[in-house]
Amino acid sequence: MENKISFKNDYSEGAHPRILEVLSETNLQQEPGYGYDRISEKAKTYINSHLANQDTPIYFVSGGTQANVLVISHLLKPYESVIATDTGHIHVHETGAIEYAGHKINTVPHINGKLTVEGIQSVLDLHTDEHMVKPALVYISQTTELGSIYSKEELQSISNLCREKGLKLFIDGARMASALCSEKVSLEIRDIAKYADVFYLGATKNGGLLGEAIVFANPELAEGFSYALKQKGALMAKGRLLGAQFYALFEEQLYFELAKHANRQAMRIAEALQSAGFRFALTPESNQLFPILPYNTINILFEDFEFYVWEKLNEQEAVVRIVCSWATNENDVDLFIRKIKDLSR
Amino acid sequence: MENKISFKNDYSEGAHPRILEVLSETNLQQEPGYGYDRISEKAKTYINSHLANQDTPIYFVSGGTQANVLVISHLLKPYESVIATDTGHIHVHETGAIEYAGHKINTVPHINGKLTVEGIQSVLDLHTDEHMVKPALVYISQTTELGSIYSKEELQSISNLCREKGLKLFIDGARMASALCSEKVSLEIRDIAKYADVFYLGATKNGGLLGEAIVFANPELAEGFSYALKQKGALMAKGRLLGAQFYALFEEQLYFELAKHANRQAMRIAEALQSAGFRFALTPESNQLFPILPYNTINILFEDFEFYVWEKLNEQEAVVRIVCSWATNENDVDLFIRKIKDLSR
Amino acid sequence: MENKISFKNDYSEGAHPRILEVLSETNLQQEPGYGYDRISEKAKTYINSHLANQDTPIYFVSGGTQANVLVISHLLKPYESVIATDTGHIHVHETGAIEYAGHKINTVPHINGKLTVEGIQSVLDLHTDEHMVKPALVYISQTTELGSIYSKEELQSISNLCREKGLKLFIDGARMASALCSEKVSLEIRDIAKYADVFYLGATKNGGLLGEAIVFANPELAEGFSYALKQKGALMAKGRLLGAQFYALFEEQLYFELAKHANRQAMRIAEALQSAGFRFALTPESNQLFPILPYNTINILFEDFEFYVWEKLNEQEAVVRIVCSWATNENDVDLFIRKIKDLSR
Amino acid sequence: MENKISFKNDYSEGAHPRILEVLSETNLQQEPGYGYDRISEKAKTYINSHLANQDTPIYFVSGGTQANVLVISHLLKPYESVIATDTGHIHVHETGAIEYAGHKINTVPHINGKLTVEGIQSVLDLHTDEHMVKPALVYISQTTELGSIYSKEELQSISNLCREKGLKLFIDGARMASALCSEKVSLEIRDIAKYADVFYLGATKNGGLLGEAIVFANPELAEGFSYALKQKGALMAKGRLLGAQFYALFEEQLYFELAKHANRQAMRIAEALQSAGFRFALTPESNQLFPILPYNTINILFEDFEFYVWEKLNEQEAVVRIVCSWATNENDVDLFIRKIKDLSR
Repeated sequence: MENKISFKNDYSEGAHPRILEVLSETNLQQEPGYGYDRISEKAKTYINSHLANQDTPIYFVSGGTQANVLVISHLLKPYESVIATDTGHIHVHETGAIEYAGHKINTVPHINGKLTVEGIQSVLDLHTDEHMVKPALVYISQTTELGSIYSKEELQSISNLCREKGLKLFIDGARMASALCSEKVSLEIRDIAKYADVFYLGATKNGGLLGEAIVFANPELAEGFSYALKQKGALMAKGRLLGAQFYALFEEQLYFELAKHANRQAMRIAEALQSAGFRFALTPESNQLFPILPYNTINILFEDFEFYVWEKLNEQEAVVRIVCSWATNENDVDLFIRKIKDLSR
Repeated sequence: MENKISFKNDYSEGAHPRILEVLSETNLQQEPGYGYDRISEKAKTYINSHLANQDTPIYFVSGGTQANVLVISHLLKPYESVIATDTGHIHVHETGAIEYAGHKINTVPHINGKLTVEGIQSVLDLHTDEHMVKPALVYISQTTELGSIYSKEELQSISNLCREKGLKLFIDGARMASALCSEKVSLEIRDIAKYADVFYLGATKNGGLLGEAIVFANPELAEGFSYALKQKGALMAKGRLLGAQFYALFEEQLYFELAKHANRQAMRIAEALQSAGFRFALTPESNQLFPILPYNTINILFEDFEFYVWEKLNEQEAVVRIVCSWATNENDVDLFIRKIKDLSR
Repeated sequence: MENKISFKNDYSEGAHPRILEVLSETNLQQEPGYGYDRISEKAKTYINSHLANQDTPIYFVSGGTQANVLVISHLLKPYESVIATDTGHIHVHETGAIEYAGHKINTVPHINGKLTVEGIQSVLDLHTDEHMVKPALVYISQTTELGSIYSKEELQSISNLCREKGLKLFIDGARMASALCSEKVSLEIRDIAKYADVFYLGATKNGGLLGEAIVFANPELAEGFSYALKQKGALMAKGRLLGAQFYALFEEQLYFELAKHANRQAMRIAEALQSAGFRFALTPESNQLFPILPYNTINILFEDFEFYVWEKLNEQEAVVRIVCSWATNENDVDLFIRKIKDLSR
Repeated sequence: MENKISFKNDYSEGAHPRILEVLSETNLQQEPGYGYDRISEKAKTYINSHLANQDTPIYFVSGGTQANVLVISHLLKPYESVIATDTGHIHVHETGAIEYAGHKINTVPHINGKLTVEGIQSVLDLHTDEHMVKPALVYISQTTELGSIYSKEELQSISNLCREKGLKLFIDGARMASALCSEKVSLEIRDIAKYADVFYLGATKNGGLLGEAIVFANPELAEGFSYALKQKGALMAKGRLLGAQFYALFEEQLYFELAKHANRQAMRIAEALQSAGFRFALTPESNQLFPILPYNTINILFEDFEFYVWEKLNEQEAVVRIVCSWATNENDVDLFIRKIKDLSR
């Protein structure tokens, strides 16, 4: 807002123009409601082309909290719980939505924003009888809430443990695109589908107006999910609106191109900060950066830019969060980099 | 779909072009998320200009079931119930969303799709102690699920009873525009606000891509509602999408013009059916018509048109539902009328 | 209370003395908590001796509403519903406990207090897609809330329909003893176990201080039920208290003897009323009677007795409810009968 | 069980004989159901005599988990949370009952089993907007789950903070009697009522067969609570059973005498252990002791006694839990003390 350039998040702008175009082009077509429209059907076909099982059930919903509640409450019996890190979005930033749906979250201290097999095992060790909830599901976010990324090997280890222990694995993919297009990690959608039981591909934070595509990599778990959508108020009369987002993002490579752009701009800033001698709370891997900056640097940057002070470290320094998006302007990043360089002279 | 003309519902098309225009015009503006954007703020101002209290709290959500669950669960204590007709959308067509939120619906047989003061009183008479739920809220739909409209006097009677008995009154306005613009009834938004504690103005069925504007005519009841929105997965990161719908519909008179068009086309069809001697299950008042047609008439109409057979009456006849919308083409209505005339010769 | 004799219900007194005796005899034994005590174990063995499968999982809980909520919420997925009569205890007299647990009750008008296969089928016919709840369970009460009893043939028909349609069958047995010992119907516990998936045997209304024994005739459905008990606050630290009720009732024939006594006294009253020319709203079959009495008769009886006026029929007459119990004194019944005879002279 | 003497918990035996006596004496009285019986009424009067406001609303329920869920869900709006220690019974040992009721528990690391004002403040500091739950209630246990006791000053500090911040204070009193009768702390019921909004007095762990007496020190909060009782399956048809526990415990001083006995026996063991040179994980204050014992000591004690190994500290030592109760036999304590003395020679 105002005239400052915002690096506050990846949902400050509207949608990639191709999405508005698809909405316009199909606007007066008469279509069935509630997700049975041809635009949504086509979009699902596009996403399925990235999967080994091209009949994978896919459902579009409006946002991440909605996706998380829908999936978690669909997979758990009333007395079952979900394991997550203490930084997990479901634990911290969803106003108790999972608990409202009746389920306890068993939290584990994060390691670089991530859940580990040891963390999962520690919860299992503590939950031994009917006086305690029964852990039945593991929730991780890719990229994590702190911008880190689970490697293929990490995902495999977690997935193996889950299968061995009879736990399901659900991956929050609000920022999955950034993970799939990271310059630091090699991952494809079909890898995710191999390790997870259910995951989603977020559009809201990667160029869409709204929308998360929930993918039931384990198709049997989808039984009855359309009832859950309606019951939880997630079924849109004009499902075409959701379909159009994914239609535009997946008809070609737009979904990946937008994430690459966001990641690239973030890496440019990361490199500039590193060159200028600043440390990071977490190694830069995705479109979210968590550098440690002195307060006087922060204040000078605030003259032209907006971003969040994430955590005060001491009187002199804080961790800040800088986020690039599909819409981040290269020139704005140039300005930011120049300012960093000036500051570090 | 196909090449048949659909009178199945009022959400078969996308959005009025002005809405897509607003989305495009504001697309690259950086805006705060979660409903704090300037587009939503402006849209709320526009709606408030129709109200006596211009500081009335307004919240935008994506759809009707979501609005119903959010409001009802916000207004009730766990052991309190909501009174509705047996045709109420919350009772029949929301997959038990209200019960999922923990509340019983006390149903009363409808009279022309409506709830009456006698119906409400009959529920109160039966609920006398702690072995039964405590009725605390009345739910009505305007227009009703059967296309009928509560007159100002009917609303006033219900409202008076509610206030006398300590009940709150909530009006489902998924099709409020059609009621406000009926050729048969005289009503304004400020009348609704006078009688109801909470109501909503639907965009989904009146030219929007999505969106219901929940209006807390009783502002104190809004306390904590933003928490409820987030907890129930209804808070959109890009709230601007919702804001843009109501911005476009209420900056001028579009909201009313679209409903008038829908009503007008419905009335044209109603008049043609009446002239041709057909009866109606309910008197035509809004954009939904429920004529009684012989099956052979239905079958002939089905060659060119689509609509729902609502209820089989006997071997010869059924009630059908015909719906016109903001997007209904006058020429298509002409074709329908001509066909009716041909049939009745 | 006072000095009037109460026929208001079957839970006005404490417990059969044998139960207090068992409590005293075992009082200072140190026992494991939470239902693992030897008294409960033994009581379950006694009940199992009445069943074809003597390893049937059995759980003791404190009351009927608790049993109903525990079982129904254990058997249903969030979007599934339970079918019941409009007189069903879960619908009318449990303060929305089932809805609080998230489930809709699909009600059907009762026929003599009972649900019929036609009634169940009518619900199935109406529920066809994900915009409506999915009926998955049938709830009936034996004896019914109106004192009537499902015959073996009626139970078989309902059970057959349920199995054919993939519905589960749950029988509320708060007054099962009265049905099993009716002079009008021939039924054994193993018949109930043959037709139902889950049912319970009530102690509260048949001589216990508290307690319903939930029997999982379909043992697989018991999985995880001990978690449900704890989560819903139904697991007693001193499970021995519950165990002692069923220990005393089932070590010999006490459970049946008490119900026979209650039924016999009710039949004596029924015969006296019939001889005196009074009609009944429902044919007397169990320990609950619903005769139709003139208000002046009621008022004269009220001088010495207490019972509920159930429903006003007209200015002259009402249906009243007269209940006998395990503790009903034969002499008190003699007094009532004498008064009836006097009145009818 | 077996022939070993159990110090595992305070609910291994039945009830104090006076309770069985009251049950017997009143057994054949005809009484109204659902808590309106004269025995319960009298018991409430007895408890009220310990309170400044002798019209304080009191409700009897069967157990601690039930009491916790009932009160917490009654006091909170859907998006509100409860603050507790990470050792809180509601967090660890109630199978997610609070979450099942829809509420998040904000946990804070315990200090000697207790919550501190700093702990509460730390939760408030983190919860700032509608993306997070709204802390609205503080839950503490007296005695704590680790046998420690909040002093009058500690309770006052917490209470003051709660009132300043608009939080309610709820005290789990499953073992309140032990706190009120501690040899280390001076507290009366009216002190508890002064600081808490709601608390309960447990009978289950102090000589009753079952039962917790929920006291609404803030009487306005009781509004509608009888509906909550029925809806959550906590309302017993024969409320007299609950009433009789508190009648017997509070007609005279039995409630206090039983707790004094339990505390005394625990202190005798504590002193013996201290004399023998053993350390404690927490200072002994109530009927629960947490000494640190070498495994070989534990194994020798296990020949004659039963108690829980609470937490392994290292290969040599563990914290064990030793609990005395109203029914603990002085001679059994003598035996235990002699064995300790023998061991430490």
